Amino acid sequence: MIKASVVGASGYSGIYLTYALSLREDVELSFLTSQTYSGKKLAEVFPSFSGQPKNGGISGLPFSAFDEAAVAESSDVVFFCLPHGESSKLVSGLLKKNGKIKIIDVGADFRFDALAAYEKFYGPHNAPELNQNFVYGLADVFGDKIKNSQFAANPGCYPTGALLPLLPLVFKGVLDSGFPVIIDSLSGISGSGRSLKLQNLFCEVENSARAYNAWSHRHLPEIREKITGALAASAGLPDDKSAGLNVNVIFTPHVIPTPRGILTTIYIRLKEDLPDSVISGIFGEFYAGSPFVSLMGNIEDCNIKSVIYSNNCHIAFEAGGGENGRMVKIVSAIDNIGKGASLQAVQNMNLMFGLEPGYGIPLYSPFP
Amino acid sequence: MIKASVVGASGYSGIYLTYALSLREDVELSFLTSQTYSGKKLAEVFPSFSGQPKNGGISGLPFSAFDEAAVAESSDVVFFCLPHGESSKLVSGLLKKNGKIKIIDVGADFRFDALAAYEKFYGPHNAPELNQNFVYGLADVFGDKIKNSQFAANPGCYPTGALLPLLPLVFKGVLDSGFPVIIDSLSGISGSGRSLKLQNLFCEVENSARAYNAWSHRHLPEIREKITGALAASAGLPDDKSAGLNVNVIFTPHVIPTPRGILTTIYIRLKEDLPDSVISGIFGEFYAGSPFVSLMGNIEDCNIKSVIYSNNCHIAFEAGGGENGRMVKIVSAIDNIGKGASLQAVQNMNLMFGLEPGYGIPLYSPFP
Amino acid sequence: MIKASVVGASGYSGIYLTYALSLREDVELSFLTSQTYSGKKLAEVFPSFSGQPKNGGISGLPFSAFDEAAVAESSDVVFFCLPHGESSKLVSGLLKKNGKIKIIDVGADFRFDALAAYEKFYGPHNAPELNQNFVYGLADVFGDKIKNSQFAANPGCYPTGALLPLLPLVFKGVLDSGFPVIIDSLSGISGSGRSLKLQNLFCEVENSARAYNAWSHRHLPEIREKITGALAASAGLPDDKSAGLNVNVIFTPHVIPTPRGILTTIYIRLKEDLPDSVISGIFGEFYAGSPFVSLMGNIEDCNIKSVIYSNNCHIAFEAGGGENGRMVKIVSAIDNIGKGASLQAVQNMNLMFGLEPGYGIPLYSPFP
Amino acid sequence: MIKASVVGASGYSGIYLTYALSLREDVELSFLTSQTYSGKKLAEVFPSFSGQPKNGGISGLPFSAFDEAAVAESSDVVFFCLPHGESSKLVSGLLKKNGKIKIIDVGADFRFDALAAYEKFYGPHNAPELNQNFVYGLADVFGDKIKNSQFAANPGCYPTGALLPLLPLVFKGVLDSGFPVIIDSLSGISGSGRSLKLQNLFCEVENSARAYNAWSHRHLPEIREKITGALAASAGLPDDKSAGLNVNVIFTPHVIPTPRGILTTIYIRLKEDLPDSVISGIFGEFYAGSPFVSLMGNIEDCNIKSVIYSNNCHIAFEAGGGENGRMVKIVSAIDNIGKGASLQAVQNMNLMFGLEPGYGIPLYSPFP
Repeated sequence: MIKASVVGASGYSGIYLTYALSLREDVELSFLTSQTYSGKKLAEVFPSFSGQPKNGGISGLPFSAFDEAAVAESSDVVFFCLPHGESSKLVSGLLKKNGKIKIIDVGADFRFDALAAYEKFYGPHNAPELNQNFVYGLADVFGDKIKNSQFAANPGCYPTGALLPLLPLVFKGVLDSGFPVIIDSLSGISGSGRSLKLQNLFCEVENSARAYNAWSHRHLPEIREKITGALAASAGLPDDKSAGLNVNVIFTPHVIPTPRGILTTIYIRLKEDLPDSVISGIFGEFYAGSPFVSLMGNIEDCNIKSVIYSNNCHIAFEAGGGENGRMVKIVSAIDNIGKGASLQAVQNMNLMFGLEPGYGIPLYSPFP
Repeated sequence: MIKASVVGASGYSGIYLTYALSLREDVELSFLTSQTYSGKKLAEVFPSFSGQPKNGGISGLPFSAFDEAAVAESSDVVFFCLPHGESSKLVSGLLKKNGKIKIIDVGADFRFDALAAYEKFYGPHNAPELNQNFVYGLADVFGDKIKNSQFAANPGCYPTGALLPLLPLVFKGVLDSGFPVIIDSLSGISGSGRSLKLQNLFCEVENSARAYNAWSHRHLPEIREKITGALAASAGLPDDKSAGLNVNVIFTPHVIPTPRGILTTIYIRLKEDLPDSVISGIFGEFYAGSPFVSLMGNIEDCNIKSVIYSNNCHIAFEAGGGENGRMVKIVSAIDNIGKGASLQAVQNMNLMFGLEPGYGIPLYSPFP
Repeated sequence: MIKASVVGASGYSGIYLTYALSLREDVELSFLTSQTYSGKKLAEVFPSFSGQPKNGGISGLPFSAFDEAAVAESSDVVFFCLPHGESSKLVSGLLKKNGKIKIIDVGADFRFDALAAYEKFYGPHNAPELNQNFVYGLADVFGDKIKNSQFAANPGCYPTGALLPLLPLVFKGVLDSGFPVIIDSLSGISGSGRSLKLQNLFCEVENSARAYNAWSHRHLPEIREKITGALAASAGLPDDKSAGLNVNVIFTPHVIPTPRGILTTIYIRLKEDLPDSVISGIFGEFYAGSPFVSLMGNIEDCNIKSVIYSNNCHIAFEAGGGENGRMVKIVSAIDNIGKGASLQAVQNMNLMFGLEPGYGIPLYSPFP
Repeated sequence: MIKASVVGASGYSGIYLTYALSLREDVELSFLTSQTYSGKKLAEVFPSFSGQPKNGGISGLPFSAFDEAAVAESSDVVFFCLPHGESSKLVSGLLKKNGKIKIIDVGADFRFDALAAYEKFYGPHNAPELNQNFVYGLADVFGDKIKNSQFAANPGCYPTGALLPLLPLVFKGVLDSGFPVIIDSLSGISGSGRSLKLQNLFCEVENSARAYNAWSHRHLPEIREKITGALAASAGLPDDKSAGLNVNVIFTPHVIPTPRGILTTIYIRLKEDLPDSVISGIFGEFYAGSPFVSLMGNIEDCNIKSVIYSNNCHIAFEAGGGENGRMVKIVSAIDNIGKGASLQAVQNMNLMFGLEPGYGIPLYSPFP
């Protein structure tokens, strides 16, 4: 039995993680913390968790305030679903009380190899000494490292949608890094969190769509760092030389009128014109061991509806042909809360506990 | 291992049933039939089922034409998800080839005790001699009968949403049947099926809502028959006397701009003014053994979002107080495809195979 | 040129009223007041008003704080779009400075004949001495009174949707008031205002629907008072005797996942069974002079999509037939912000300024 | 009085054009043709047009079959809202019967200067001899030519959204045409027409988003031709030399779950790094005479909600700064049916009849 706690369980990713863990017979929820709802029962705050005690369900589990000692003692793994800057204040305390506790941070604090990049976009880091302990939790790519780590930093939702389709090509060395990597992402509004802002109101989101943070979204440097790292690896350079490699990543997030999901359209140039079969082969080989990443036969079938609530990433591409021979469009679809946060966290937990990565995670997305 | 076939697997309820069965390790899908997509693989038609063969998933399973002999031989249970009038043509052939095969009809053909009522609304019945073999599959109410039956007729989606909150009060004998039972239901558009009609187009459904079939919806006589049967039971009359009991059921279905779910608001009059605690007690006692029906503390918490994709039914009520003392409003929320069709069918399968009713069915609805 | 001011111009009804007035060449906007946005220009707050100064549009008009003297001096008519209890604090001051100023209150303060009913649901009234000066601004019914009044109290959105279909039958004396009038309304979420509440967030509203305020919505006593008044009139009684007439009105508001619109389904019993042609005739006669109320041929065509953004009310009915002979279902569709607030306010302005009621108001709703 | 006919009035652009013309007191609708609904009245097919005859509205106007002689005789202007290849069969017949009749083709048949480009994407042209008579009806750019023409070819919806923000920079000569122009567009599903396809069903569109026609959308060559023409003009070359100028246009249309609107995000490189004020100045100068195109202060304010139902185009840009100095992102928002089809057609009509371009077209979009 894995004893798990979720710190920050009442936001959209925290509550979906709680849902996903409730599906597991081998996981026991120790603590669900929430500043806002401390003292209330799960089903009181989220009627979707209503049920009867006889079921052995978790309807009656309470939200509690964060209690370092209690969480440390009674958890094998702690998930953090907090705003950036918060988990980094809490990790070291937990470790002092329970040196073996596994940490999966769904937030941003430990995603960067380069602290300077983090601090430029997020401000001073609260636990720089712990940063290098964390493995970047892009589970379908870095599974081998995650397996052997006590600490995983779950990627951001946009980076998950962008990196899963990009990294196979970058690692293979076929990307022409002299041309910008242009990433155009459409996100459901849950990405903005369960917060009381005008821009999150139904009447503002419905019947609309907009771009935002055109050049300055915090997920841009995260995407760029991981591409640069893969470029270095493909060039046979050690990671710490990656700073010498440049790639111009241009990223535009958009909000569309739907609750969940991210569709990412990417424009890249290859070093040389490659036939579709070669490109397909690169993806097929790269994700041969991954149960959750599928290459779709055409771009229309790569849509948000087909992946919501799931841990899947669907990828499709079309090469330009003719004058656009070296240009390729790649589209990916993920669920921002599932693959982009909570279910990827569960996949990381599986890896860190020696389970199959897909253990206890549904294979498909419900339809319609 | 239960070998199951789904006849009519490519409509909304058929495909969601397929999804629900794919979650089960103790169920093997033998045949998925579809006239429209025969010969295509599941994931080709529904990208939400995309996945990799190595997973042991069902992405590669083909849709096939209905083959009586093959289905009969290789199925322990057959689910029919067909337009009315179709399953009743097929059941007797299957039985001749496999007398032990269990049948769960998600369609309308065997829902009525009184053939005359069926024929008035649906036209001539194609297998009247089989009708009495079927138990009405309202699983949380008639579980004991279903357990012992080889044949279950899944209720309609609206009747499920209306009867679950009504029957406890009717069986208990507190309903004043001299006053109309007024049922006002709001359904997601998936209830209209995956069919090419103007009224199903996004641009017609979005930003709209409408009532339809104001006095003549086919689910009205189904609701009325089951209420009348419960009235008879509460009066200690045999079922076949129920025709002598009258209750005026008024039912108005509406379409609202959402894919799934039914919210039902019901207005009834009780024989006498009852305190809330007594009414709560009636529900609590009636559903004490049912994992899927919950009484909510207030009407606002009884909403579609909290039950979509689930097999749950949430119920809330408010008694009138003062001048309206005997009037009660009851609200229920279900997923029309989950509880109203496919997941209730799985619950029936569980019962018919001697399993716990909730075996392998998720307890909660995902949020958001 | 009519000089008009909108007090509380930045809520949903205030801004739509501003939009509607901007279409008029005979109206000049004097003041748009907003506590929240005072000092900002219209187009800065609402990009939908962006435009170029050369057009003579109102993009550059500022929101300002409420200034009694300035508003009084430079307005022929003042519209109040404020939370209840606010306009009643301001009217008397304006009148002292400009005794001829016309007032159209889109809020609730002056809608009731009986102050006691108001105070029971809203709390103490701030200007009881002014209350009797206001005419109830249900423009298609009480147009004659409104024409001759300096003060109009715009009806609530739900009452507009409920009373327009009910009053013709009540005035005609065909309603059986011994049976409850059951009103089931579905509203777009804009009815909840542009306010930062969890229940207004996109992710809470989308894919959901719920009832609320089951027995206690503030629009219930408003509806009941106007029905009672019409009952009195139909019985030849003076208004002040209406308290002796009882009618049991049961009202349940629901929220559905759409920004605008109200669909109202009403269940009534008539004194006697009437043929459809007679009922149609009652509506036809009653609204013969009204450009905005239409009787639809069937209930399916009476939907929200067909009236959003308009001042129209579509009505359809179906009589029960047979055992339900005296029962009638009536459905109405309005735009909660248009007919239910801002455009009805413009219609009232037209009446109060001696114009045709439909002057400058578009006849149709845009599609799709 | 302008006598206008709409050929193909029952599709989404045809019916919205009909709506827009119904707002005009100086326009009389002569014929509304529809193959599907011939013989039915407008309000029978579209309940949004319901109203009372006394209003002088168009509720009772019939749809009719196309009658060349009747249309020719009784129309000053004919609008075609037909699938491609259809209007080109009808124009020459109309002209023989009425040589002065003005034609505004909302369809694709006459949008191209180069017939070869048309034929490559659409197939053989049905009236090549008439093609050169048509002016490209991008009204805010080519108003001067349209004023003096009898024939206007309304641009496609995507080209309208892409060209309005691009052309000012191209004509000014600041675009670096050695870098691809990358255009990423999000469209409401009405762009797919009122046709019975699975992909248009509510349950397929809602909670989803997808790209389509990744390299081969028919609007791509239209966009490319007009950019190339502007490049030629900026270089002082005659139009017919434009074939010698190359620009690599990459275009990806997407469908998002909303009925109307197009948001276009464009990535370009400038010849040199320009300060924001210079870029703003280029737009300001270019559209100084246009009432409908506005430059927004920031990208978030440039959204679909703010322009739906309108003839407006909102534009915002952000220059890259630093390493991305010459890269610029431009976002535009239009209503695909309003600006992208029907209202731009009305603007063209205004121009062709010597009226102000904005005559009788609302300045703003309604909110919410």
